[in-house]
Amino acid sequence: MLETNPRAGGPSPGAGTLLQLLRDGAPRTRSELAGVTGLARSTVTQRIDALLASGLIGPAGEAASTGGRPPTTFAFQPTARVTLGADLGATHGRLAITDLAGNVLAATNADLDIAAGPKAGLDWIVNEGRALLEQTGRGAQDLLGVGIGLPGPVEYSTGRAVNPPIMPGWDGFDVPAYIEERLAGPVLVDNDVNIMALGEHFTHWSRAEHLMFVKAATGIGCGIISDGQVYRGAQGAAGDMGHIRATGDNNTPCRCGNTGCLEAVASGAAIAAALTAQGTEAHTAMDVVELARAGSLAALHLIRQAGRDIGEVLAAAVNLLNPSIIVIGGSLSLAGDHLLAGVREVVYQRSLPLATQHLRIVQSRTGERGGAIGAGIMVVNHALSPERVDEWVTAG
Amino acid sequence: MLETNPRAGGPSPGAGTLLQLLRDGAPRTRSELAGVTGLARSTVTQRIDALLASGLIGPAGEAASTGGRPPTTFAFQPTARVTLGADLGATHGRLAITDLAGNVLAATNADLDIAAGPKAGLDWIVNEGRALLEQTGRGAQDLLGVGIGLPGPVEYSTGRAVNPPIMPGWDGFDVPAYIEERLAGPVLVDNDVNIMALGEHFTHWSRAEHLMFVKAATGIGCGIISDGQVYRGAQGAAGDMGHIRATGDNNTPCRCGNTGCLEAVASGAAIAAALTAQGTEAHTAMDVVELARAGSLAALHLIRQAGRDIGEVLAAAVNLLNPSIIVIGGSLSLAGDHLLAGVREVVYQRSLPLATQHLRIVQSRTGERGGAIGAGIMVVNHALSPERVDEWVTAG
Repeated sequence: MLETNPRAGGPSPGAGTLLQLLRDGAPRTRSELAGVTGLARSTVTQRIDALLASGLIGPAGEAASTGGRPPTTFAFQPTARVTLGADLGATHGRLAITDLAGNVLAATNADLDIAAGPKAGLDWIVNEGRALLEQTGRGAQDLLGVGIGLPGPVEYSTGRAVNPPIMPGWDGFDVPAYIEERLAGPVLVDNDVNIMALGEHFTHWSRAEHLMFVKAATGIGCGIISDGQVYRGAQGAAGDMGHIRATGDNNTPCRCGNTGCLEAVASGAAIAAALTAQGTEAHTAMDVVELARAGSLAALHLIRQAGRDIGEVLAAAVNLLNPSIIVIGGSLSLAGDHLLAGVREVVYQRSLPLATQHLRIVQSRTGERGGAIGAGIMVVNHALSPERVDEWVTAG
Repeated sequence: MLETNPRAGGPSPGAGTLLQLLRDGAPRTRSELAGVTGLARSTVTQRIDALLASGLIGPAGEAASTGGRPPTTFAFQPTARVTLGADLGATHGRLAITDLAGNVLAATNADLDIAAGPKAGLDWIVNEGRALLEQTGRGAQDLLGVGIGLPGPVEYSTGRAVNPPIMPGWDGFDVPAYIEERLAGPVLVDNDVNIMALGEHFTHWSRAEHLMFVKAATGIGCGIISDGQVYRGAQGAAGDMGHIRATGDNNTPCRCGNTGCLEAVASGAAIAAALTAQGTEAHTAMDVVELARAGSLAALHLIRQAGRDIGEVLAAAVNLLNPSIIVIGGSLSLAGDHLLAGVREVVYQRSLPLATQHLRIVQSRTGERGGAIGAGIMVVNHALSPERVDEWVTAG
């Protein structure tokens, strides 16, 4: 009954709660842990032993003695396990082995067509993942789990893509089962923008309570972080801003089946198509960025306007969610300040003063690896939650 | 240090945690509480004694004996204290005394002009609040706190309205200080739509993790409930959907200083103005509702179109937040199914299939009292949080 009551205080602090305390990196003695948790000294000793056996913590030297034998301290061991984080985009795959603190131990990239179907993409993750593991000198038994980001709507609870517009063959495919059979579990799957938001937040903005991460690339999406967690909504579909209707445009057909979506007018693909129609050939978001870098006025103009269109939708999002920071990432953001200038112009004009007085709008800092790191962090947050750790050390 | 670390497991379960367990209403023995919390039996006894002294729990008879003297059980006492909940709208005030379980013990309404300034509105709360307290036979010492909803943006942390468009004299006024001097504290202030959302969620949809409540009346606003809590964002400004730009209209001036806001085209005030311009005199949202009830085709047509305009903004909100339920309230919703039909028409057409497959769009069930009840619940959730209860019973 307690599990289903959101007001319940929960059971006594277990091994998992001790580990949460230690995840900040500071070493602590048994007495300190007993003092903070209110647990009996004997209970703390028992739980410390279980955590030591799991390898998640280790002895970390002696504390200053207050007389008598100095007590041993214990600290989190971020290298006890590793994660495999994968970020599959429309045309690329990125993979990283991280430790439990999000440090990248090995990484690789490849051109990869998501439209080639789930087996091609997932086999790449399995094969390259095994190679990376070997490269770091770790084995399959060291793998805490696998995190995967996909470029489309994902039902987080089942790890399956649901009606993804650019991913033929992926609809409903059981990604976790496929990976678990070949590598290890748990396998967690989320929208690629959610894991990018998580990576950006964990590595650069961990003090920000309310962050929005916008990926402007071939498509447009957004990840919402609230209290350090991805805001997923009822079916894990939250943050899909690419198919919100853009203001002032109602007719451009979108690949989702609707018309006038933001993605149909302001994405890298849309700008490339507009440039091509104007006589300047461009196919991808990166083509657009390179034209802008080479000084193409047509490209700069369209990027700035895309920024304004994205800004209109973000202005609505700012009124609804009142974030403290908006991070703009994705390949289109590599065009320099032009995209951000358009975004800022409209957001500060259209949003309410209370919501913008402390709002920051900044460019992504994690760059290409943010998604793979975020996928790893997703696994760590899941597997090292107090409940999971309690199960783990009890089972072990 | 632990307080600032979001990953920390927190200190040992105190009296407040025991109270949270008991808030579900079920009586429990000392042994049961020791078993669930992992606390020593002696610690549980000590904390139970402190809670008994506060009156928040009471003995609730004997449990079945397993041999020997049957043990006493303890249960939450929702009548131990009362709250005063106030809901100030543009042209009305509503007040309720509730117990700690949200039951209304006494209530009153009045026509009240928010534009008359803070002292007029707050004095009404103080005077009528005292009268209601007396009516229920309770004294000032029984008052757990006061919750107030205001019809404009509120900085929740300070309890002050910030640049409220329809509330001359309220900008920056220290509402909590004014009320605390005359009644009791704590005094919590929030946007009126947030407290309506809380009241609707607590009384009818407490199992829904993600709820949006839309108030369509003189103005338009929205309250977002996530995991049972109001989603406030960085400055407490979240949910202000009335000043999001409506699609297809860019020029109508809005009282906020911008043009083309949803509120400027789809609120009760906007519809009344449009009807008047067409030759059918109407001044308030209720005038519009009465015309619709009397079968005015012009009113019905405009209400339906307002539903579509609200639906466009909600479609964006659904893509961003993926709620499981949208509740439509406010006086305009009293016009029957016309408003909801317009909302549903656009939301189901414009939002992504994954986000709408289980989405429900329903009319408000709490009606007029929802705001005052929600204001009381806001006080209860705050004052009975484990941390506050721990302070309370330690200080007592």
